[in-house]
Amino acid sequence: MVNTPNIFCLVKGASEGHTRLNAFDNALLNAGVGDTNLMRMSSILPPGAKQRVIGDINLPAGGLIPLAYASIDSTTPGRYISSAIAVGIPEDDAKPGVIMEFEDHSRLDNVESIVRQMVIDAFEYRKRKLKEIKSIGIEHKVENCASTFAAAVLWYE
Amino acid sequence: MVNTPNIFCLVKGASEGHTRLNAFDNALLNAGVGDTNLMRMSSILPPGAKQRVIGDINLPAGGLIPLAYASIDSTTPGRYISSAIAVGIPEDDAKPGVIMEFEDHSRLDNVESIVRQMVIDAFEYRKRKLKEIKSIGIEHKVENCASTFAAAVLWYE
Amino acid sequence: MVNTPNIFCLVKGASEGHTRLNAFDNALLNAGVGDTNLMRMSSILPPGAKQRVIGDINLPAGGLIPLAYASIDSTTPGRYISSAIAVGIPEDDAKPGVIMEFEDHSRLDNVESIVRQMVIDAFEYRKRKLKEIKSIGIEHKVENCASTFAAAVLWYE
Repeated sequence: MVNTPNIFCLVKGASEGHTRLNAFDNALLNAGVGDTNLMRMSSILPPGAKQRVIGDINLPAGGLIPLAYASIDSTTPGRYISSAIAVGIPEDDAKPGVIMEFEDHSRLDNVESIVRQMVIDAFEYRKRKLKEIKSIGIEHKVENCASTFAAAVLWYE
Repeated sequence: MVNTPNIFCLVKGASEGHTRLNAFDNALLNAGVGDTNLMRMSSILPPGAKQRVIGDINLPAGGLIPLAYASIDSTTPGRYISSAIAVGIPEDDAKPGVIMEFEDHSRLDNVESIVRQMVIDAFEYRKRKLKEIKSIGIEHKVENCASTFAAAVLWYE
Repeated sequence: MVNTPNIFCLVKGASEGHTRLNAFDNALLNAGVGDTNLMRMSSILPPGAKQRVIGDINLPAGGLIPLAYASIDSTTPGRYISSAIAVGIPEDDAKPGVIMEFEDHSRLDNVESIVRQMVIDAFEYRKRKLKEIKSIGIEHKVENCASTFAAAVLWYE
């Protein structure tokens, strides 16, 4: 059994690349998590988890890192792509929060406002009081082949 | 290295939501696993794993929970969507079992009979004797935007 | 927190099956990893990880195994499908390597040459010196319903 993480970082990145997977890999490097092994999960903030800055924590190279993320790629020049992630922090810090992710062929303001509303809906459905939403996102205008990425990385301290 | 789980729970849920991801999140809550971090895996029942009821085990809030699942969403009002999961238990409880998942735009009886046959096929291909199949599933008639979810959650006791 | 793996195995498999998931399950068995719980990750080789042969390591039945993989299935008789994986080993073995995966409706020589180039691009983008690329792949001509699979499995010794 794996311990429950107790910190989170919000990160974002975007990049061109020669293939879709290279563009994604480059976006991960741009976000500061490119030399780790990301393990995607459905998307709950553990109770009391604290926010940290990615540059301040020590993710082991090649380590297995749980996270929730939004990502989209495109090979249509001139098109905008955007990814955003939002974390809802509950009033009662003994309760878990909710992480929502959204991505689209669209400008970021649209994508980020949707992902923030998704957090509000998730708290309403849980009948849980929401203290604050933290969100982050990134948009990119495609040149040839590009990817955007926004994530909530969970880790330990 | 993570220890191999030794218990499993079969769960199911369905819900409407304002977005596809909210509908999925609500279906997870409906299934009793909505405040955890689900980590999807390919789908083997560890040897000798015992079945438990989800309400009787203690999944940590925000904890990292391995599982196999079927899920489908739809935004077409009036359409049926179904998800089902089946676990094949071997005669020799020193051998692993097999978990199969299936989902479709269809009624549940069809989806569940397919997923049960998939388990039979998986045992035949392994030339392993099958003692019993346990399956669970759920169907939902879409109102606006809905998701169904059926899973075998693995955990520890 | 999960320890960072220190060995890797390259594996491949292909199979027909009655459903797409059964074909995938059979391909996993063919590759020697079919009775484990595979957890997909984005795809970095931990620093100094050593290559092993899958038959020489002991993966626990039903155990949770991290890996990066390529996979594709098809139900179009006569069509070729191919999956390939490539691992770039850095000159400096204190640095992480990169794992790339690619799959297509195509012959293997094409797919494997693309995935090897993806590793070269990933090292160039990192400005990291590449010592060697190890790759593996498999092609299959579809009879009815088939899957191909190529992976870098990470584990411990």
